[in-house]
Amino acid sequence: MSMTFEEQLGMYAELLVTHGLNVQPGQLVNITAEPSHRDFVLKIAESAYQHGAKFVQTDLVDARFERLRLLKSRDEDLSFVPPYSVPRYDYMVDQGAANLRLLGPEDPDVLADLEPKKVNTLRIHQRRALKRFYDEGIGKSRVHWTVGAAATPAWAKKVFPQEKNPDVAYQKLWEAILKACRADRPDCLALWKEHNRKLQKRARALTEMNIKSLRFTGPKTDLTVGLSPKAVFKGGSEKGPHGVEFEPNIPTEEVFTTPDWRETNGVVQTTRPFFINGKLIKDLSLEFKAGKIANFNASEGAETFRAYIESDEGACRLGEVALVGIDSPIYRSGLIFQEILFDENAACHIAVGMAYKFCIDGGERMSTDELNALGCNDSSVHTDMMISSKEVNVQAQTYGCASLTLIQNGEWAWEG
Amino acid sequence: MSMTFEEQLGMYAELLVTHGLNVQPGQLVNITAEPSHRDFVLKIAESAYQHGAKFVQTDLVDARFERLRLLKSRDEDLSFVPPYSVPRYDYMVDQGAANLRLLGPEDPDVLADLEPKKVNTLRIHQRRALKRFYDEGIGKSRVHWTVGAAATPAWAKKVFPQEKNPDVAYQKLWEAILKACRADRPDCLALWKEHNRKLQKRARALTEMNIKSLRFTGPKTDLTVGLSPKAVFKGGSEKGPHGVEFEPNIPTEEVFTTPDWRETNGVVQTTRPFFINGKLIKDLSLEFKAGKIANFNASEGAETFRAYIESDEGACRLGEVALVGIDSPIYRSGLIFQEILFDENAACHIAVGMAYKFCIDGGERMSTDELNALGCNDSSVHTDMMISSKEVNVQAQTYGCASLTLIQNGEWAWEG
Repeated sequence: MSMTFEEQLGMYAELLVTHGLNVQPGQLVNITAEPSHRDFVLKIAESAYQHGAKFVQTDLVDARFERLRLLKSRDEDLSFVPPYSVPRYDYMVDQGAANLRLLGPEDPDVLADLEPKKVNTLRIHQRRALKRFYDEGIGKSRVHWTVGAAATPAWAKKVFPQEKNPDVAYQKLWEAILKACRADRPDCLALWKEHNRKLQKRARALTEMNIKSLRFTGPKTDLTVGLSPKAVFKGGSEKGPHGVEFEPNIPTEEVFTTPDWRETNGVVQTTRPFFINGKLIKDLSLEFKAGKIANFNASEGAETFRAYIESDEGACRLGEVALVGIDSPIYRSGLIFQEILFDENAACHIAVGMAYKFCIDGGERMSTDELNALGCNDSSVHTDMMISSKEVNVQAQTYGCASLTLIQNGEWAWEG
Repeated sequence: MSMTFEEQLGMYAELLVTHGLNVQPGQLVNITAEPSHRDFVLKIAESAYQHGAKFVQTDLVDARFERLRLLKSRDEDLSFVPPYSVPRYDYMVDQGAANLRLLGPEDPDVLADLEPKKVNTLRIHQRRALKRFYDEGIGKSRVHWTVGAAATPAWAKKVFPQEKNPDVAYQKLWEAILKACRADRPDCLALWKEHNRKLQKRARALTEMNIKSLRFTGPKTDLTVGLSPKAVFKGGSEKGPHGVEFEPNIPTEEVFTTPDWRETNGVVQTTRPFFINGKLIKDLSLEFKAGKIANFNASEGAETFRAYIESDEGACRLGEVALVGIDSPIYRSGLIFQEILFDENAACHIAVGMAYKFCIDGGERMSTDELNALGCNDSSVHTDMMISSKEVNVQAQTYGCASLTLIQNGEWAWEG
């Protein structure tokens, strides 16, 4: 049974609302998307009301207004965050709202020619102002949050540069998104239940293994990432304020944890390009010494990367390590989506910046000192960098002194 | 010297920012518009930053989400207003922000087939929740507020039903808007200064005349609208929190005041169609007895009108009376814009619903009892109805027992 494109879009909207946000009767739903996504957002909102949403708030954000602000505002005003945004996001935390961020840029390069430091200034102040939302709403899952994506013509042009017909490229990108999200399948919702069960089981088994370090080996890569004895692997759905599960990312193929940033050593090469504030970072090689980036070079975006890792003290230290096998539909698509939601799910990755406290056993109730003692990194930034391919192996060394190959030639070699 | 279309758009944006909002250095600017206006809103925002705006907040509101809510939400949730919208609008009041509402519907009929009572429920609760913003921000001019408009293809189709080429209709509507706003003229900003001076002078002279009643006579029309001795006529710009002038409506051609609603008697016929929540009301005839609508009929929209005037106690009583001459560029365009911002500036009009306290001498500091004693109407709704044409005369009867013709055959016959 094959589905029409419209049916697949409907399935995808349903997936985001049910398996993603898992909207409950009476819940407040917030959706942030670009204006050109509004037809698709209407489908999502309709599904949300059908599942009992009390109210669906939609924020249509045109990134050109942020560009304009960065270009035209006085420098001293760039740190301004309208204070009324705080009660709004606090309310979402207090109410256990559902929050969908729909990615997919109308203009992927809208900020690319701007001074990285200026762009970061905005981000850092916004993040600080909404600290409670990020810490409790997102970090402690008091909000049902999901990140998804919708195609745009400009994004499609980036992903399919050889395709000269923009309508065809746009359609191809939608099809790639729908396929990566299994929304091209009539049994999509059941497949996600099964997939989620598998990711959760894998994460549980890795946590129980009590891993002391992960070693990534491959071309120009020999990186050891240390984990604290309290590291918890996560994968698939999270539990919201009332014990209801939701899926933070659609698609998701990873299991991930918080490293002890101090125990990162060695060299590593990124295997896929990635973006910082819209700027391409390509062929990045990194050297870590005692947990900090000691050296790096890149064929593109080196200056952007330098500014980024100097954003604050924690920006040059690891905040995440994640494992993904080449059975991932995103890896198998052969595409570089140039969007981290997809690209991070094509390969193992590490992230500089903010670490997830919920990936430390008891971490959400720990003091800053206790978290520091475990090497749980703090920062206002967070960016994933893909470091695996068919040529990369991952070995685990446990606190019990066992050694185990988790991934061999990019493929999972172990099942919990 | 003739201006290109792009130059006229730039002039219009500049007019809205300088003569309209009169944005001051360091001021917060809020713009609400439909998503399809965002290219023009970018021009406005750029002008606002150039005039020193601290931050320009843009709300792109797609009315289809409101429609969806009205159709899909549970009835008991329609009274819900997200509580976080209150601090947002309070902040604008406290800061003396500038607030631009850009009209121009993507789909003028988006709510037209919905139950009027349901649509009103949303409006009434939103208005109640943001009472302080409406009372102090708008009513006491603590916010620099301006209402303007931008063309859309669907709106253009309504205004130019004979024009078969939608691109031409859209262009025609833009040109009509720009002309009505004098933005087709290189001396636009100077013209508005002069125009504003004239409206203010006229309002002042009418106030000083101490009018007891206005009598409208014409076809099927003999209506007397009584004014309290404290009635103040307004026209043109208002003064914001720091004594800075702003223009609430662009375009504006009216002088207006708050009637003593109890002293409205007689019959009147509307001379132009108008809309309530997107529904057309056509050929409305009204009979007022002791200040209340006692009878009415309409060739279209009678049920909508009935539901509207039953919204609350004040919805069937007058809250405004306004005088406009046929020298108005909107009258002279010969167009029915089907948008009240324009159509109310084509003819004299009365409004049912909420009265302006600032049109009562000292009204902003009066208690509810004091306002009631002057017949200042209160309601959560407000809708203008045009009642003049080339065949209508307006006579003033003063408290000093003088009688004076203000408007003869639609034209100003008196200058203050």
